[in-house]
Amino acid sequence: MAQTSIIFRLELDHNKVSFGDVAAAISKSGGDITSIDVIRPGHDFSIRDITVDLSDKDEALIAEALKQLEGIKVINVSDRTFLVHLGGKITIQPTLPIKNRDDLSKVYTPGVARVCTAIAENPKKAYSLTIKRNTVAVVTDGTAVLGLGDIGPHAAAPVMEGKAMLFKQLAGVDAFPICLDTQDTEEIIRTIKAISPIFGGINLEDISSPRCFEIENRLAEELEIPVFHDDQHGTAVVVIAGLLNALKVVGKRIENIRIVVNGIGAAGVSICKMLLQAGVTRLVPVDREGAIVRGGTYDHPMWQWLAEQPQVESTEGTLQEVIQSADVFIGVSRGRLLKEEDVKKMAPQSIVFAMANPDPEITPEEALPHVAVFATGRSDYPNQINNVLVFPGLFRGALDCRARRINEPMKLAAARAIASVVSAAELNEHYIIPSIFNEQVVIQVRKAVIEAAILTNVARRTPPEFR
Amino acid sequence: MAQTSIIFRLELDHNKVSFGDVAAAISKSGGDITSIDVIRPGHDFSIRDITVDLSDKDEALIAEALKQLEGIKVINVSDRTFLVHLGGKITIQPTLPIKNRDDLSKVYTPGVARVCTAIAENPKKAYSLTIKRNTVAVVTDGTAVLGLGDIGPHAAAPVMEGKAMLFKQLAGVDAFPICLDTQDTEEIIRTIKAISPIFGGINLEDISSPRCFEIENRLAEELEIPVFHDDQHGTAVVVIAGLLNALKVVGKRIENIRIVVNGIGAAGVSICKMLLQAGVTRLVPVDREGAIVRGGTYDHPMWQWLAEQPQVESTEGTLQEVIQSADVFIGVSRGRLLKEEDVKKMAPQSIVFAMANPDPEITPEEALPHVAVFATGRSDYPNQINNVLVFPGLFRGALDCRARRINEPMKLAAARAIASVVSAAELNEHYIIPSIFNEQVVIQVRKAVIEAAILTNVARRTPPEFR
Repeated sequence: MAQTSIIFRLELDHNKVSFGDVAAAISKSGGDITSIDVIRPGHDFSIRDITVDLSDKDEALIAEALKQLEGIKVINVSDRTFLVHLGGKITIQPTLPIKNRDDLSKVYTPGVARVCTAIAENPKKAYSLTIKRNTVAVVTDGTAVLGLGDIGPHAAAPVMEGKAMLFKQLAGVDAFPICLDTQDTEEIIRTIKAISPIFGGINLEDISSPRCFEIENRLAEELEIPVFHDDQHGTAVVVIAGLLNALKVVGKRIENIRIVVNGIGAAGVSICKMLLQAGVTRLVPVDREGAIVRGGTYDHPMWQWLAEQPQVESTEGTLQEVIQSADVFIGVSRGRLLKEEDVKKMAPQSIVFAMANPDPEITPEEALPHVAVFATGRSDYPNQINNVLVFPGLFRGALDCRARRINEPMKLAAARAIASVVSAAELNEHYIIPSIFNEQVVIQVRKAVIEAAILTNVARRTPPEFR
Repeated sequence: MAQTSIIFRLELDHNKVSFGDVAAAISKSGGDITSIDVIRPGHDFSIRDITVDLSDKDEALIAEALKQLEGIKVINVSDRTFLVHLGGKITIQPTLPIKNRDDLSKVYTPGVARVCTAIAENPKKAYSLTIKRNTVAVVTDGTAVLGLGDIGPHAAAPVMEGKAMLFKQLAGVDAFPICLDTQDTEEIIRTIKAISPIFGGINLEDISSPRCFEIENRLAEELEIPVFHDDQHGTAVVVIAGLLNALKVVGKRIENIRIVVNGIGAAGVSICKMLLQAGVTRLVPVDREGAIVRGGTYDHPMWQWLAEQPQVESTEGTLQEVIQSADVFIGVSRGRLLKEEDVKKMAPQSIVFAMANPDPEITPEEALPHVAVFATGRSDYPNQINNVLVFPGLFRGALDCRARRINEPMKLAAARAIASVVSAAELNEHYIIPSIFNEQVVIQVRKAVIEAAILTNVARRTPPEFR
């Protein structure tokens, strides 16, 4: 049972109850008081925040015990996770103080008029004279948030703010959350285009499939700044990174392996595309109705596209059938779809990435005895496949070279860069992917992305160190 | 002639020219070198930034002198105003660092999911658990920027960023610039509604008239957060503040005076409305075709509205005619419309606010001998009527009480609060309005706005000190 901290805000009626009674009630219920803050002192009544360490199950017990005491009102119960979100997780700061009238006349009227005129005469100057060159919109419509589904734009905001924090801390990118109060594809495209002038890039986030494909493709075509749907490509890039290193561990080459990808939604489609780009010759995409096969006919345009690729196998079958003798299984689907006997039937030295969240497609306990490399999206097992490894460095690179778009070579370069951060000496079956706190990740991803952007002619600026 | 600093970025060919030659050329042309930064050293070539203090007229002379030297390439000339804009004027910062995996699990997955769920269950919690409660969008379509007109969304950004700086420094409000790539009224309304969930308020800025009226009115009706077009109401509030104090200086009462307002566009309409709200009984709105009169018929819906108000005078006439015997002239129109003889004909102890920018409706030199109180929008004369006095405190108050909208009583309360910051002892004809750096301004405006919001039932929260 996990240990956690929660904070009880209590109003005490001093005529009826003493703080000693409160402390005793909390201790008896299994809680450990670690701090007390008096929020409003008073002779008859006081309000205090009591921080308590406890195991998950004790929270209800303590709340119940406090309610039993006469003279106590539980105003609020906040745990630490909620507390770090109070008031939001990002702020906007001026880059310099306005100390006097002279400063004001430079950053605002009348001096700013000359800066505006310079941009009006040459719109490219927006990149040097405004926040555009370092600013990304993190845009969602709140329809596919984490595993929670369609929770709406307000409820999606904490994820977008968390992402903005990571953008800044890991890569120095200024990111601002935009949570859209519309789920209409055309309206979303129009809105993002309309607000695009201040941004140097668009990170789409948690938009449900299949609308996400149309939205991303149209924006990528119609805007001159990079557009990147993280749920598709962020996941794909880090999966490929992990796979490249896993193949090194088992001594197989990507051209020779047979791969099953289960769950052909937003992430699954992008993974399949990147695998083909990376040189995979035998690919088996699988969704609820079984394998998507070469020569088949499908309503879903991306499935149809897969059915037309020569590397996609033509033999039909259920997941349980097609996984036989596969070298690699990549799941971006649902928890507990596979059993021990399924992975047992895979080729020797098999690789399983079970990325469903929070429950993987197969538990580590069932898989580990039979596979050579096992990875999940979870932080409590080794080999966490986390797209926080991707978006900070990818956008850092795209912004620094003013990339017009983010193309397949740039994504593949990012995957190889992430894989390269784990040295040959460090690499083993429990360590195929670096930590998100490894500072080399952003540095290497940025460098690889800029090189690929320059090579493929989407860079509009060559940073000094690449000249 | 103003003294200013500019920076020359020069490439020197050391085989042809020495730095001594450069220094001599700059000095001879009237410049004073204050610092030298070597940007790229080298044996044959080097790049240096030379900061030079000079008077405005010398800049061209120096540039010319440098071009005459063989072996010098002037790469760039930046003055200090441009330099403070480099890379933009705001940044986005996390409120706390993510130091380890445990921190990450609180601000991002998996912990953030509980916070999202709490908001999905009770959307009001967006105000406590996201940035909404302190965040304002500064939205423009770039059609009426300063005196520059329709310069587009990219070129408008420096003004919006400057405004965001002022919001934060003066009132602690997080403001983010949104520059719209559309000029269609319906599209602007739709876009702002679509992006509204993350914002606690909308500050419209530099949107041309008459579209600005429709956009503001529709958004105010259709959104549950305050919407405020600063060019209309910010100007009106600060004009009323100045007028209240000017009337004290001349010992007249607002009910007894006759006021001419010239220029019935965005600001002029709002000024007229507020004057009526403040108790004015004799109002003469004037535009290019002369006085807008009671009983007249007008295409412009706001002019028609004015023609229906009992306080509006019914006598037609040109500006020069109607200004005769007026107590107050307020101009939000064009420079140099009035002559000395026009203001001479006003009532004794007259008040003139000549707000056209950069040239006022009449120069101080012509007006001052004949009027009791004179004010402009300029910082180089006394009595600067600057809407920076308004928006920070107004939004601080509206956000703190979660006002549903910003109504006329709140604006009037803000105007009275600004006026109140100048004490009776301080008040005189050269000091009717406080400095924007006076810390009492935001404090008093906030307080007055919250009180008015509570009284008029638009506050959805009562801050502790108002309980």
